[in-house]
Amino acid sequence: MEVIKIGLIGCGVVGSGTAKIILQNQELIQKRLGTRLEIKKIAVRNLNKRRDLDLPSHIFTTKVDELLTDPEIKIIVELIGGIEPAKSFILKAMAQGKHIVTANKALLAEHGPEIYQAAQKYQVDIAFEASVGGGVPIIKTLKESLAGNRILSLVGIVNGTCNYILTRMQEEGLAFEEVLRQAQEAGFAEADPTLDINGLDAAHKLAILASLAYGTEVHLGDIFVEGISDTDPLDMAFAQELGFVTKLLAICRLEKNALEVRVHPALIAKEHVLASVRLAYNAFYIRGDAVGDILLYGLGAGQMPTGSAVVADILDLARNIRCCISGRLPALSYAIDPLERVVLKPMSQVICRYYFRFSVLDKPGVLSKIAGILGLHEISIASVIQKGREQGGSVPIVMLTHEAQESAVQKALAQINQLDVVTAPTKILRIEEG
Amino acid sequence: MEVIKIGLIGCGVVGSGTAKIILQNQELIQKRLGTRLEIKKIAVRNLNKRRDLDLPSHIFTTKVDELLTDPEIKIIVELIGGIEPAKSFILKAMAQGKHIVTANKALLAEHGPEIYQAAQKYQVDIAFEASVGGGVPIIKTLKESLAGNRILSLVGIVNGTCNYILTRMQEEGLAFEEVLRQAQEAGFAEADPTLDINGLDAAHKLAILASLAYGTEVHLGDIFVEGISDTDPLDMAFAQELGFVTKLLAICRLEKNALEVRVHPALIAKEHVLASVRLAYNAFYIRGDAVGDILLYGLGAGQMPTGSAVVADILDLARNIRCCISGRLPALSYAIDPLERVVLKPMSQVICRYYFRFSVLDKPGVLSKIAGILGLHEISIASVIQKGREQGGSVPIVMLTHEAQESAVQKALAQINQLDVVTAPTKILRIEEG
Repeated sequence: MEVIKIGLIGCGVVGSGTAKIILQNQELIQKRLGTRLEIKKIAVRNLNKRRDLDLPSHIFTTKVDELLTDPEIKIIVELIGGIEPAKSFILKAMAQGKHIVTANKALLAEHGPEIYQAAQKYQVDIAFEASVGGGVPIIKTLKESLAGNRILSLVGIVNGTCNYILTRMQEEGLAFEEVLRQAQEAGFAEADPTLDINGLDAAHKLAILASLAYGTEVHLGDIFVEGISDTDPLDMAFAQELGFVTKLLAICRLEKNALEVRVHPALIAKEHVLASVRLAYNAFYIRGDAVGDILLYGLGAGQMPTGSAVVADILDLARNIRCCISGRLPALSYAIDPLERVVLKPMSQVICRYYFRFSVLDKPGVLSKIAGILGLHEISIASVIQKGREQGGSVPIVMLTHEAQESAVQKALAQINQLDVVTAPTKILRIEEG
Repeated sequence: MEVIKIGLIGCGVVGSGTAKIILQNQELIQKRLGTRLEIKKIAVRNLNKRRDLDLPSHIFTTKVDELLTDPEIKIIVELIGGIEPAKSFILKAMAQGKHIVTANKALLAEHGPEIYQAAQKYQVDIAFEASVGGGVPIIKTLKESLAGNRILSLVGIVNGTCNYILTRMQEEGLAFEEVLRQAQEAGFAEADPTLDINGLDAAHKLAILASLAYGTEVHLGDIFVEGISDTDPLDMAFAQELGFVTKLLAICRLEKNALEVRVHPALIAKEHVLASVRLAYNAFYIRGDAVGDILLYGLGAGQMPTGSAVVADILDLARNIRCCISGRLPALSYAIDPLERVVLKPMSQVICRYYFRFSVLDKPGVLSKIAGILGLHEISIASVIQKGREQGGSVPIVMLTHEAQESAVQKALAQINQLDVVTAPTKILRIEEG
């Protein structure tokens, strides 16, 4: 029987998960593929690290070049993450005619076009299902299953750490720092969780998804990003009273040929299916002009779920190798460069409903002053809640607006925050209608 | 530019949806595919029927042979449904070297192996995403995205009509007949809804999904099927009190190499993500040994969602045609016949938790008699609710059991139903832990 040999660069969480699946489901994979899949080499930094894998030690090497120049290795699986040396390894492997599987979201978000062009130049395939959503097949769904659709919007819960933290804050009324500390102790959050909680990890994933949906380059810098570290359980409680759940959402939405791309905490109605996505789960809510609304849901990280996506990609490329083809499915699923590029809409022009929490002195006339400023900026109020006193005579006024433009909101809040009667900067949450 | 020409057999709901998408998103599809897609012929029964499609009248024909023998047509899209003449058309088209896209679940559930073998014999491809779940990419996910996984279970809400009826019964306390009548008037249910409400449509879909998941032949006759026409809003209300929602579920589950395949109304905990799937939506909850739990959700029927799946399949096959290949992905995603076939577990051996509602006379000692019979059959009670009197002195006793075997339950209930104090056959609902 024919054998397809692969080389893994990196044997950390995802790398060892990938190897485990290939070893454990060897026979099943062989029956599905019709060919044996063999891990010929794994490049690692430290040969002496104990690894719980049933593989002979000669498979491991510290020399990546042994993989890149081995003519028997047809697929290179890059699982070290980060920009360099991952990028150089991938480009060098492509130049050697090797197909690429990668889970590297940062690299694709920042240098995607260069990588995709290299794949085309060297007539090799690149697959990256594991870069977004772990084992959830969001990349294949966008590239293939929705290929006949114009994607109208994609709203995703794409960062498991943030969703875990927000779920526990919401359900247990805990403060952000407290849950983060517990999550780190329990291993649900990284020792340095900056990229997760500041929204950048979500923005990387959104850049990849938006590029796929529209066949266009969406750069990281084009995306409006707000993380979750300022999210207050008090606002989550008020929002819950009003029928909303708070989630960190990655949103891209096409309206009149202008594309919104943004990552921020947002309120979503508790009846919406995204509201039921709890803890470390990810979910992608996609609206297509033909398919209507669909949702994909599952674990967005972890050794085995992400390994599952890597193995699916390896099988996809191995099927191409068996048929002696490449380029069947272009990296972004556009065989012809889409000439009519979408225009990115600046955040200031985004229109949505808003939640505000004003901290004000409990004096007559305060609400009228605030409402007056909002009115001047054509921001229309949908509902107001005023609650009992806080410490220092300050009270919260919670307000939901009708649809308003971000620029008007920012201007109005700047004025409101300067009022004598306002004791703290106004808290703001955008409402996502989904 | 190269053109790939297709022929549609049938221009009903799904056929016209497919044509609409191809026309409306012509340019987008061309950019993705790199080739123009052209509908060359559409075979219909009645040429004079008004169709809301921007296509010249010469495209329509009543002679299917015009499509099947046209050497320019590379893909035949069968959308007439039913066994014959659909089966003969497909086999004849394959013999002519044409690739097939079909949405025909009944045909694949009943004659899948014959169709798949013919595809192999004539070296053509067959794709059938639209046969299950409308626009939800459940087929591609099982065949490709989860190809590295052993599928441990699949629990699906696969019939939109049943889910619509059960949702309204649950939320509004209406009787089955009342909601069905309203659903028919509103066009949500067929004039003859038999195949939907008796569970057979769900069983067709389950046969296809189980065959895909295990690469084995699962026949319609192997599946235990119960429909929803006996579902009583009273049981739904009791179950809701106990924290459950009632759904028609299609279940396949592998345990110790034995496969359960069953369709019946079942209780699912209201916190489970499947419980939030309302009205006409479908959902598939899959557990893989690597990926963990994932869910796919969306509209399982309708012109445009189902058309979306058909168009995705057409694009898939068109990509193969562009590369001059076939057989890249076998019909069931197994390139080698899986020799080690799974054994089907008879329903009598299924083990789950149960909900019972006994209708009994309000006399001392009744509960003890019932509990005694259950005990004799080693059925252990988890909780009991007894409610106020019904008309005629009869009262309901609602009971949840721990895990029990179906055969023991059936024997115990047969004995209990014969008791003098039991006034009506015991109602039973199986609990799905998901």
